[in-house]
Amino acid sequence: MYTELPATLVAELSLLLGTDGWRTDSTALDANAQDNSWRRQVPLAVALPCNREQVQAIVQACRAHRVALVARGAGTGTTGAAVPLQGSIVLSLARMNQILSIRPGDRCAVVEPGLLNGDLQQALAPHGLFWPPDPSSADICSIGGNLACNAGGPRAVKYGTSRDNVLGLVAVTGTGDLIRCGGAYTKDATGYDLTHLLVGSEGTLAIIVEATLKLTPVAVAQAGLRVLYRDADAAAQAVSRVMGQPVVPTRLEFMDARSLQLLRLNGADVPDAGAMLLIEADGDHDTLPYLLQGLANAAEGEGMLALDVAMEGAAREKLWAARKALSPALRSIAPGKINEDVVVPVSRIPALVSGVQALAAEFDLTIVTFGHAGNGNLHVNILYHPDDADENARAQAALPRIFALTLALEGTLSGEHGIGLAKRDFMAQAFTPETLMAMRAIKSALDPDGILNPGKVLPPR
Amino acid sequence: MYTELPATLVAELSLLLGTDGWRTDSTALDANAQDNSWRRQVPLAVALPCNREQVQAIVQACRAHRVALVARGAGTGTTGAAVPLQGSIVLSLARMNQILSIRPGDRCAVVEPGLLNGDLQQALAPHGLFWPPDPSSADICSIGGNLACNAGGPRAVKYGTSRDNVLGLVAVTGTGDLIRCGGAYTKDATGYDLTHLLVGSEGTLAIIVEATLKLTPVAVAQAGLRVLYRDADAAAQAVSRVMGQPVVPTRLEFMDARSLQLLRLNGADVPDAGAMLLIEADGDHDTLPYLLQGLANAAEGEGMLALDVAMEGAAREKLWAARKALSPALRSIAPGKINEDVVVPVSRIPALVSGVQALAAEFDLTIVTFGHAGNGNLHVNILYHPDDADENARAQAALPRIFALTLALEGTLSGEHGIGLAKRDFMAQAFTPETLMAMRAIKSALDPDGILNPGKVLPPR
Repeated sequence: MYTELPATLVAELSLLLGTDGWRTDSTALDANAQDNSWRRQVPLAVALPCNREQVQAIVQACRAHRVALVARGAGTGTTGAAVPLQGSIVLSLARMNQILSIRPGDRCAVVEPGLLNGDLQQALAPHGLFWPPDPSSADICSIGGNLACNAGGPRAVKYGTSRDNVLGLVAVTGTGDLIRCGGAYTKDATGYDLTHLLVGSEGTLAIIVEATLKLTPVAVAQAGLRVLYRDADAAAQAVSRVMGQPVVPTRLEFMDARSLQLLRLNGADVPDAGAMLLIEADGDHDTLPYLLQGLANAAEGEGMLALDVAMEGAAREKLWAARKALSPALRSIAPGKINEDVVVPVSRIPALVSGVQALAAEFDLTIVTFGHAGNGNLHVNILYHPDDADENARAQAALPRIFALTLALEGTLSGEHGIGLAKRDFMAQAFTPETLMAMRAIKSALDPDGILNPGKVLPPR
Repeated sequence: MYTELPATLVAELSLLLGTDGWRTDSTALDANAQDNSWRRQVPLAVALPCNREQVQAIVQACRAHRVALVARGAGTGTTGAAVPLQGSIVLSLARMNQILSIRPGDRCAVVEPGLLNGDLQQALAPHGLFWPPDPSSADICSIGGNLACNAGGPRAVKYGTSRDNVLGLVAVTGTGDLIRCGGAYTKDATGYDLTHLLVGSEGTLAIIVEATLKLTPVAVAQAGLRVLYRDADAAAQAVSRVMGQPVVPTRLEFMDARSLQLLRLNGADVPDAGAMLLIEADGDHDTLPYLLQGLANAAEGEGMLALDVAMEGAAREKLWAARKALSPALRSIAPGKINEDVVVPVSRIPALVSGVQALAAEFDLTIVTFGHAGNGNLHVNILYHPDDADENARAQAALPRIFALTLALEGTLSGEHGIGLAKRDFMAQAFTPETLMAMRAIKSALDPDGILNPGKVLPPR
């Protein structure tokens, strides 16, 4: 591990990238030291390439010197995947942020990785198209970061995650080679599927330098239902019913009783209930009422307290504002938050929710559960005061129990945040040794010297 | 390369598998020697394991002796992917054909690879669910084969291919290790995506022993449009318009003028036209008319001659019977047929169709083009008489030009058939040397001794 970069490497890269592209000043180092996990490690330098050839040259130079290289988008990830280990160079894709083409006839766009998700959506709007992944950071996160972490969001239940919405990639592997896979087409049985392999690999296999994204036409009308239930179990049963009938909702969000309490404490106009579902559909003005009726029929059942239809406009905005207010509300209750994004089969949501509440009681912690129920992807938020050493210790002790519960329910560690550093050490519980060995073999195949984002995704041997 | 298997290997595997599971009689060898590509090579033995432990033991034994092992489903593939090279053992999954569970609440089924696609659909029907991949061989092809080749079919335009409809796999790699990835959930950002990597790898990376399949609720109503156009270009423009609006058709099939002529020659009731689209939608009885209207609006335009609505029942059956009659009709015109399944961006379909017709003129061949236009996936059928040496030679000479045309239009070699032996030698035109090198590295990572289906997918070095 380097504490200082080799002089020949510095000379080569500073010449290649110029003063704007090779930064070692504290402003640049600080700005690239952490992500939204609040983990922090200052890199030795920040490289800001302008094109794929520069990315190749940087990788090749780092490979020659065995220097760790951490690809970075906008730094909004929550797992530390973009936080360097000691002795690393950060490769920021901030300057590779162009839309290379929008092809409405092929329902795709070709973009550079540093482009912000929000900027892409703005550019697509005049074409009546959108790119489905909608993490809560959509305005400020990058497409490359979305792909690297397989970002999702509420719309994934109908439109899929980042992995489901990419058709092709150009990337630089750990050998410095440029590879190209997939393209502007939606069906492909030609060779190994490198495209989907790279999505979610968090910059550990290759650095994405271009992506062909699958676009979807914007539906002309949306509408939502707000459904209150006696308890979490009744709401979870309704989720199973909704997902078992033909109308796929565009969003299907679950909030437990504590989520609703927190919303009310913060002044939101939400009635008292054991749990709530927000269920949304899209279509056109003719079909939407029928779709909504299908969803409402499925939402109704044992334990339902009330169902409100919020059609387009202000009522719908208000409904979603309540959901979006939840994350800030958590921060106002407790300054410390461990936000996990576990996934279970939809039929196991009731067991997950009740299991989490049992852990909250056992560890005397406030745990708030809400999220993307249609995908079985729930955000389990352990709230605590970092200054309270005892509560802090209980929060840290509860976390592995939540993962163990999830895995016992045949679920998995992450639905949309990724692994990074935060969940890396739980990978050995999630996968058999043989499966991890296969993942390591693939890592070695594409990054034989282990220079790309070392220490992330896979646990130390 | 073995011309006879090592006696110790034979002793080990015949003891392991018994007389029903270790077959060297000519009936078994002949039955496992070819696929629907009509390529043929008799294996040295056929192993028929009953469970994953036996698959592991077979792979480990073959690895110890460096014997090539070819996984085989139902042998309906068209590329020779399941045809052994000389000196191989075929591992038939015919006896591993059980449905392990159907989980309607989780919209998934867990199955063994030898299960036939048609048998799965029958078992799902009472639950109101289906598995989307619908190759024309659906009744008699296996799920494992569908996954190995990333099979598609007409429904893929709305519901995706095999790769889009698998949630998890259990597989045995070339090291004999059992790996498990994914599961009964629809969102996953946990480690490397081995699941989608194995789909389409044609048994060259691992042998699938269990699959968790994503299921879709059956829509209550379907209806179709038959639209005639002046020429292929007008029809192809309509395809772009249809795919550019929000209603996604469940099937969008294109037939060129020669396809229609062939249908008429065989007595089908199809009017004279330059090209035809069959466009289908599904939904419920309330919404379907609106969906169909949206598709009809998009289908209308310059060069459209006639549009007929065929609602449910007999009219719809008749419409699809015409489409299904096409492949047999081809065989009646000429005994030789090279059936490719190239893919281009939807906007390039007009250029593909006119380019193919130019090649037909240049090589004085009958080439019939039809297929899954919504995915840009067209079946280009070169018809010839194998006994006519000159015509045969012209057919073989036209083939690489069709691939070159496809690649020049930013397309790719295969949309749903795979590569196998048939298109292996064109891979070096489809991918850069660096990309092929990355694929080879992944092959070596999961099958270090190269025993799994050698000689397929990747071209010889």
